[in-house]
Amino acid sequence: MPDSRIPAPQVCRFLATALERLGLPADDARTVAELMTEAEVQGSDGHGVIRLVPYARRIRAGGMNLHPDIRVVKEKAGMALLDGDNGMGHLVMKKAAEIAIGKARHCGVAWVGARLSNHAGPASLYARMALPHDMIGLYFAVGNANHLPPWGGLDMLLSTNPIAVAVPAGEEPPVVLDMATTVAAYGKVKAKAQRGEQMPVGWMIDRQGEPLTDPKRADEGFLMPIGGYKGYGLAMIVGLLAGSLNGAAMGSETIDFNQDPVTVTNTGQAILVIDPDAFGEVAGFKARVDKLVRELRASERMPGVDRIWMPGEQSHEKRLANEREGLALPPALRRQLDDFAREMGIPQLSDT
Amino acid sequence: MPDSRIPAPQVCRFLATALERLGLPADDARTVAELMTEAEVQGSDGHGVIRLVPYARRIRAGGMNLHPDIRVVKEKAGMALLDGDNGMGHLVMKKAAEIAIGKARHCGVAWVGARLSNHAGPASLYARMALPHDMIGLYFAVGNANHLPPWGGLDMLLSTNPIAVAVPAGEEPPVVLDMATTVAAYGKVKAKAQRGEQMPVGWMIDRQGEPLTDPKRADEGFLMPIGGYKGYGLAMIVGLLAGSLNGAAMGSETIDFNQDPVTVTNTGQAILVIDPDAFGEVAGFKARVDKLVRELRASERMPGVDRIWMPGEQSHEKRLANEREGLALPPALRRQLDDFAREMGIPQLSDT
Repeated sequence: MPDSRIPAPQVCRFLATALERLGLPADDARTVAELMTEAEVQGSDGHGVIRLVPYARRIRAGGMNLHPDIRVVKEKAGMALLDGDNGMGHLVMKKAAEIAIGKARHCGVAWVGARLSNHAGPASLYARMALPHDMIGLYFAVGNANHLPPWGGLDMLLSTNPIAVAVPAGEEPPVVLDMATTVAAYGKVKAKAQRGEQMPVGWMIDRQGEPLTDPKRADEGFLMPIGGYKGYGLAMIVGLLAGSLNGAAMGSETIDFNQDPVTVTNTGQAILVIDPDAFGEVAGFKARVDKLVRELRASERMPGVDRIWMPGEQSHEKRLANEREGLALPPALRRQLDDFAREMGIPQLSDT
Repeated sequence: MPDSRIPAPQVCRFLATALERLGLPADDARTVAELMTEAEVQGSDGHGVIRLVPYARRIRAGGMNLHPDIRVVKEKAGMALLDGDNGMGHLVMKKAAEIAIGKARHCGVAWVGARLSNHAGPASLYARMALPHDMIGLYFAVGNANHLPPWGGLDMLLSTNPIAVAVPAGEEPPVVLDMATTVAAYGKVKAKAQRGEQMPVGWMIDRQGEPLTDPKRADEGFLMPIGGYKGYGLAMIVGLLAGSLNGAAMGSETIDFNQDPVTVTNTGQAILVIDPDAFGEVAGFKARVDKLVRELRASERMPGVDRIWMPGEQSHEKRLANEREGLALPPALRRQLDDFAREMGIPQLSDT
């Protein structure tokens, strides 16, 4: 393992220690640390370890409930609505996924929404929770800051509102789509800033409609939706399903958690779980997924294209590499974590 | 009403007469005619009256079952799987929507998939069926011809696989998103060809990667997915949910129903219905939708933008105009319908 890489379990221990020091009960600290590490392992670097310091800022400002009573407030056979009691989003949506999986086993499908949740990391973390049960997971979330105006507008009233879908395969890796409804997720903008890199043209524009490529100027512009008005429509619909339906914040109610560490975000998220077993033999379904994956992968390629990737396949390869070689945290992030550890009086990552 | 426009009920009668003459039972002919007319009324001209002649070709070639036994083959509290018995897709998915609405009332959410269905018109027709019940409808379908290679590939193994979502509002029109996962739907390409118009750059490219703008050359190229690899991922996921999950055709199994009028298409579609009543007061939800719509609409606008539209709002305005002024069928389509009427020995549209 190269010196610059840290084994994932070591990163997880560091995160758990930090979160417990911040006041989370030990079990909750471990759960959140595991999910943050998992995000990093699967290559979702905009939603992994980089979030520790912003989470800490909110926790220390009193903007998050460290002892939430996460509870079902509405329930039917195929659905539940959770009140997250302003707890960490990871705890809320892990519970949501567990409830949805249990209900899907009985009903064939189940939908669990949440309000009064918080940022929960990458969408695919929760969609993927269906996979070990041979189920399909879909996840929808209202992003935690508005970076997107309605199509043709200038007021940033919508967030990147991501969608993730995880579909189990047989011998192939699962098919996992995890996408913001914008050309780039805001987490990717933050990761570019962290690395001191410029953004490609097309990720953001400024209020004059000119390309914005310096991620440090991100608050002077807005993200571009995929497919123009289609991405705007998708962002709005995801917000209606994950936010408005649950009585969570949408539109102007959305709290920019980067700017405001105190106000309750009332974040809305939702998970839908489908049990293929209800539709027929699971093995048959997984074999059909394999067949499709192999067919697509074997397509004749455009000049210069070495390989055709399935959704989630690059993440799958990153996961294998990160598990084998450890996590390559960028130097700026390492320094930030070291400063943070000193400040909190906990062992540094390298000594954990 | 201008001379060139035909009242929607007259178009509906013509379609019903034509479909009955083609051999559909009178009730089924009326149902399909109503849905085809509804498509035209809402401005989905690529999926409305223009489809009569292709449907007729398939029916006369024996490629569609005129007396299908559309039945539930798998069922749980929150889901059903329909076998469409190769009937017209409109009949299959209307039944699917009705079952899903009934189940959602009990379970809060319900998912109904179909296999052995056929082309059913615009996706939003079925998502919208939830609206009179104050429910949210989502519809997913495998398109009936492959026009999309995997990202980086050249083999057309995916279709435009559309998504529609219909969300009830209070005083505002419902929010209705109806989008292909490609920049343009293939139906729009066909409509351009019908009208003798060119396509904008960005809708399609040829196998050399060059822009293709002549809709008559559509079979020499493929549609472009929205957001590049994201749209490819969405098209694949929609296909897995609406096709593979149901045991319907996906990938290379997809029959190009424009080229092959005989082979059973085994079309897959799915509808998801969510009952907001399970999540709290419906009136409160609808008021939140209204508030969001009004907020977005009131956004400051980019220079040159007269109005900010909600998803489905342009269609809503077309519906109002078409109901008031009648349907403006293009001259080429009118001639085609007149020829068809003569051939079938039924009264022409203008005499219906």
